[in-house]
Amino acid sequence: MRKLVVGVMGGGEGASEDVCRLAYKLGKLIAQEGWVLLNGGRGVGVMDASAKGARECGGLTVGILPDRNAANASPYIDIPILTGFGDGRNFINALTSNVVVALPGRMGTISEIALALKNGKTVILLDFDLGDLFSEYRKAGLMFSVKKPEEAIAEIKKILAEGAEFF
Amino acid sequence: MRKLVVGVMGGGEGASEDVCRLAYKLGKLIAQEGWVLLNGGRGVGVMDASAKGARECGGLTVGILPDRNAANASPYIDIPILTGFGDGRNFINALTSNVVVALPGRMGTISEIALALKNGKTVILLDFDLGDLFSEYRKAGLMFSVKKPEEAIAEIKKILAEGAEFF
Amino acid sequence: MRKLVVGVMGGGEGASEDVCRLAYKLGKLIAQEGWVLLNGGRGVGVMDASAKGARECGGLTVGILPDRNAANASPYIDIPILTGFGDGRNFINALTSNVVVALPGRMGTISEIALALKNGKTVILLDFDLGDLFSEYRKAGLMFSVKKPEEAIAEIKKILAEGAEFF
Amino acid sequence: MRKLVVGVMGGGEGASEDVCRLAYKLGKLIAQEGWVLLNGGRGVGVMDASAKGARECGGLTVGILPDRNAANASPYIDIPILTGFGDGRNFINALTSNVVVALPGRMGTISEIALALKNGKTVILLDFDLGDLFSEYRKAGLMFSVKKPEEAIAEIKKILAEGAEFF
Repeated sequence: MRKLVVGVMGGGEGASEDVCRLAYKLGKLIAQEGWVLLNGGRGVGVMDASAKGARECGGLTVGILPDRNAANASPYIDIPILTGFGDGRNFINALTSNVVVALPGRMGTISEIALALKNGKTVILLDFDLGDLFSEYRKAGLMFSVKKPEEAIAEIKKILAEGAEFF
Repeated sequence: MRKLVVGVMGGGEGASEDVCRLAYKLGKLIAQEGWVLLNGGRGVGVMDASAKGARECGGLTVGILPDRNAANASPYIDIPILTGFGDGRNFINALTSNVVVALPGRMGTISEIALALKNGKTVILLDFDLGDLFSEYRKAGLMFSVKKPEEAIAEIKKILAEGAEFF
Repeated sequence: MRKLVVGVMGGGEGASEDVCRLAYKLGKLIAQEGWVLLNGGRGVGVMDASAKGARECGGLTVGILPDRNAANASPYIDIPILTGFGDGRNFINALTSNVVVALPGRMGTISEIALALKNGKTVILLDFDLGDLFSEYRKAGLMFSVKKPEEAIAEIKKILAEGAEFF
Repeated sequence: MRKLVVGVMGGGEGASEDVCRLAYKLGKLIAQEGWVLLNGGRGVGVMDASAKGARECGGLTVGILPDRNAANASPYIDIPILTGFGDGRNFINALTSNVVVALPGRMGTISEIALALKNGKTVILLDFDLGDLFSEYRKAGLMFSVKKPEEAIAEIKKILAEGAEFF
């Protein structure tokens, strides 16, 4: 049986230290569950921090890179998938994640949340206030808001316990 | 010199009659200016209605389809670009448009607006209230809100008059 | 009814003058038939020459570019489709063409021929010797070899006359 | 330091038993070296057989799938990357592999070899006769032919020993 792939989305260059700290902690917790961490793979912001956390706890990290080579990949990414597709790779991030946790970010993150929801993925917003946006998905039980990384993990476990078919 | 390519985004199957009427009118006006209309190419909602409007006024219509064949293309699309990339084609819509007009839509439309803004395109929201989302782009003069198709055309002309380099 | 889209593939920077002359002539003939010319869109080699020929005869030219902007587009391309997908766009070239004419080229051209044949497109090799490669498609009547642009046009007309469904 | 990613390309549904046996053996050897095996991810032909071999030896297997879900993924794939891009994903296979081993296949395999060579990857043909095709790459020391899986492994080790920069 395959391991669960948890997509971690969020800001790149513009991510604050607080957001990166959350991402780092989330990465640790994902690895401790034995899950695979997937993100956009670059060596900045939420991507770098979450991969670092996961790696330090022995987790496997997969990065879906926009580039044609690994020059900008985070050193904490084990498997850099080189798409050469620029932001077009956001669609792959959404499809490949079994479940998505989104931290504060901007356009790229919002496009990933939108594409994830559109393709039937559950999205957990971690300390990320999107107002009424996507509220229909919240009502449908496909989008949740949490404040702490531990709560994000708890939400994922709840979904797993409910027997959702991820694979 | 190339013709301006105006991307028209908005709801598919779920678009209301009112929204489709706006899209149809917008398509007509775009064609009357001699501009090329680009959209997601399918034969439903804003895509079908805007292409129909443009075609009836002799305009050229380009559809960036998610599919591998033209079976679901709108009959009003002159040039169906078959990507086979599913929602991944939204990125191509954003890049290929010189300017984007977005009517009410859901996840797909939001992902296109986000990718357009991220890639430096001006986005004109036509009767589409997104609350505070993307407000930083509004402040930067890259996102505008209008109520009528005629106003969207006027905004585009203003940008052209300011000498923006589209090509 | 839509116009036929003829994909013209072949060498880029490395294309010889003779090959470019063939491409230019082919572009002219495609435009004279009222067909749309599609190619990879860059301002070099077979792409530039075929678009120039088509444009000089009043044809419509569509370029599927690997880039995120039109800086490297041929000036003879009317509609630059900006994919940002690098060589990944070769798949779009294959899918979007109703029929493909391939002039001498290298890796990119061969990948396009392979993807076109795999996706059910007829490929006409114009003065391009591929030895036994793809010979099964030749036997199946999906690949033809011609020496002159006029013969390529004649092959396409024959296919149209046989009532092949392109659209 | 990252593990080497070896891309294994070759026939799908049409692959012969002999070819699948070679792929299975190759997968085993790749895993025994501690390398990551990457392929197109589907549960048929060379993809399925090579993943099975690698998995049985404790290797990590990554599949770049054309689909939007994992329904057609080989059960021996640990990490299914869901691109939704159809054959467009062949470009990702080429970019993501540090080195490519190609077994007998048809259009898809040829497109992958072409895209790999075009993007600077070394390609090792395993019992796959392509005649003169790509012979310029053979002369440039970027394409090799071997008869046995063990020889493919030896070629990769030779390249590594020469200090090629893969990462």
